[in-house]
Amino acid sequence: MGRDDGTGEGNSAYGRTAFTRSKSHFADRITADGRDGWPVEAGRYRLVVSRACPWASRAVISRRLLGLEDALSLAVADPVQDDRSWRFTLDPDGRDPVLGIRFLSEAYDRRETGYPGGVSVPAVVDVPSGKLVTNDYQQITLDLATEWSALHREGAPDLYPSALREEIDEVAAAVYEDVNNGVYRAGFATGQAEYEAACAGVFRRLEWLAARLERQRYLVGDTITEADIRLFTTLVRFDAVYHGHFKCNRWKLTENQVLWAYARDLFQTPGFGDTVDFDHIKRHYYQVHTGINPTRIVPLGPDLAGWHAPHGRERLGGRPFGDGTPPGPVPPREAVPSAGRA
Amino acid sequence: MGRDDGTGEGNSAYGRTAFTRSKSHFADRITADGRDGWPVEAGRYRLVVSRACPWASRAVISRRLLGLEDALSLAVADPVQDDRSWRFTLDPDGRDPVLGIRFLSEAYDRRETGYPGGVSVPAVVDVPSGKLVTNDYQQITLDLATEWSALHREGAPDLYPSALREEIDEVAAAVYEDVNNGVYRAGFATGQAEYEAACAGVFRRLEWLAARLERQRYLVGDTITEADIRLFTTLVRFDAVYHGHFKCNRWKLTENQVLWAYARDLFQTPGFGDTVDFDHIKRHYYQVHTGINPTRIVPLGPDLAGWHAPHGRERLGGRPFGDGTPPGPVPPREAVPSAGRA
Repeated sequence: MGRDDGTGEGNSAYGRTAFTRSKSHFADRITADGRDGWPVEAGRYRLVVSRACPWASRAVISRRLLGLEDALSLAVADPVQDDRSWRFTLDPDGRDPVLGIRFLSEAYDRRETGYPGGVSVPAVVDVPSGKLVTNDYQQITLDLATEWSALHREGAPDLYPSALREEIDEVAAAVYEDVNNGVYRAGFATGQAEYEAACAGVFRRLEWLAARLERQRYLVGDTITEADIRLFTTLVRFDAVYHGHFKCNRWKLTENQVLWAYARDLFQTPGFGDTVDFDHIKRHYYQVHTGINPTRIVPLGPDLAGWHAPHGRERLGGRPFGDGTPPGPVPPREAVPSAGRA
Repeated sequence: MGRDDGTGEGNSAYGRTAFTRSKSHFADRITADGRDGWPVEAGRYRLVVSRACPWASRAVISRRLLGLEDALSLAVADPVQDDRSWRFTLDPDGRDPVLGIRFLSEAYDRRETGYPGGVSVPAVVDVPSGKLVTNDYQQITLDLATEWSALHREGAPDLYPSALREEIDEVAAAVYEDVNNGVYRAGFATGQAEYEAACAGVFRRLEWLAARLERQRYLVGDTITEADIRLFTTLVRFDAVYHGHFKCNRWKLTENQVLWAYARDLFQTPGFGDTVDFDHIKRHYYQVHTGINPTRIVPLGPDLAGWHAPHGRERLGGRPFGDGTPPGPVPPREAVPSAGRA
């Protein structure tokens, strides 16, 4: 999410007794039937993300896998927020070329005057009105998978198959609690006991996941689903930031044979690794969280070359895209300079 | 050394432009001929160390290898200094039982009234007068190896053989600059460029060392020497503290096959691993350096069980103790509670 309002990802995270993640304030849904007033419509909305943020990166991956690049445009914020939060300093004149705004907060303010809460990504903005529609990171990808289906590319996978939803939700809930959010609870702990409980929980769940993934290629069913996307965005950041910066250092991902192969398998699948920007990831965490890294120095390591090594998980079977096909190449305007170079 | 006076190991390390390590202020030598007024004498001196400190740990290892435990007694300071620096809070009533002092600084003050500099370990104190003799961490071990020979145990190795001194000095100088002290320059850098230069230098030298150690069991000659002791005290701390806390994170020691086997070989040699206290090491670095770890939280990782795995370096030949023998077991009064449990 990359809030800076006290959810722990900004500078103001300290002084509280335990890290708690805020619920999304704006939870309207963009649906096929438009029941919340926001119908699915090609070209109408803009997805605002930071490539640093694991919660936003879920939406970037889903959008690629489903072939929604033309229907839902993408704005990429600077990985380093300032005191006005996420900003479009990567764009010419520091302004998003479609929304015409300099700070994501402007879209929040158009939606709710004087909104006092945090500004987070992912955010979907209604282009005509410039208003924020939703920053509900838990729902956005589910809606991309199910409500936006009329705009999916031919051959798009079913990322949230009806028959498997219960199991996906169950796995995702455990992964959220212990892994996706567990690393944050470890990293932003203000006391030893709080840290130890969170860190132990991270590794306990990772061991559980490794056991599950030892004999099956994907987390639920035999194809890539929402559950894999949610685990991937944490795993891909693990050695680069969570291991050192968040002290989740029992072992590196590269030291766990099963999870490292699983993560590499996904990384090498079109739609995953081609969205990952390790430069944005490292600079965001190390430069923004001055409460735990006062020098703002960004480490040189780890060596990331291994992401491209063969993973050997084809032997487990599985059909990555089910009856569908992989997405095509990344549109040149969205290419990550360092992607594929890990 | 574990100073707290601006050499970078205390809280006041920040605000300078680059990390520089102070020279030892007290450089008297304890010699066989007593030319500085301090003759080698059994039972006269007390070696004060912190088991956290790599510089002090050199002396602890040399003393063990040479069998000087009865001739030179040992005081172990609390790994976490307070604003009066190293303290004997691990001893009954918080007082060293031999010197009768609560803070190491008292021995410094007896030597030089109102001494304004930093207090560092290793320190050798003259028991009768209670005065500090030397805190010269670069010289103390060389003198233990050469000047104290009349008191060495039977079968003690020659840690600084005349014929190899030039080569030992040369290797030790490179290891000091890039590795022993290089990790500190990386960890206490106040700017990105300073950090990157130091960190790159650490790994460049480690690669050089790995190439050297691929075909020979020890750094210089075919026996354990001073050069190995000096490299070991940094390597044994590498994954536990330097990798994360000092951002030397290109790879973990466990990821470098040669250096990891070399370090394990020494660790499993009597006199090395039996002096290592990972608990003291981790608590010292993470709790004292609030400038880079403001939360003072000590990580749970890394998993250290691998230190006891077979290293396979016997095949390289080498005679660990030359014509001598390994030291006997650690005297019970000096046993490290967690030693051997890595």
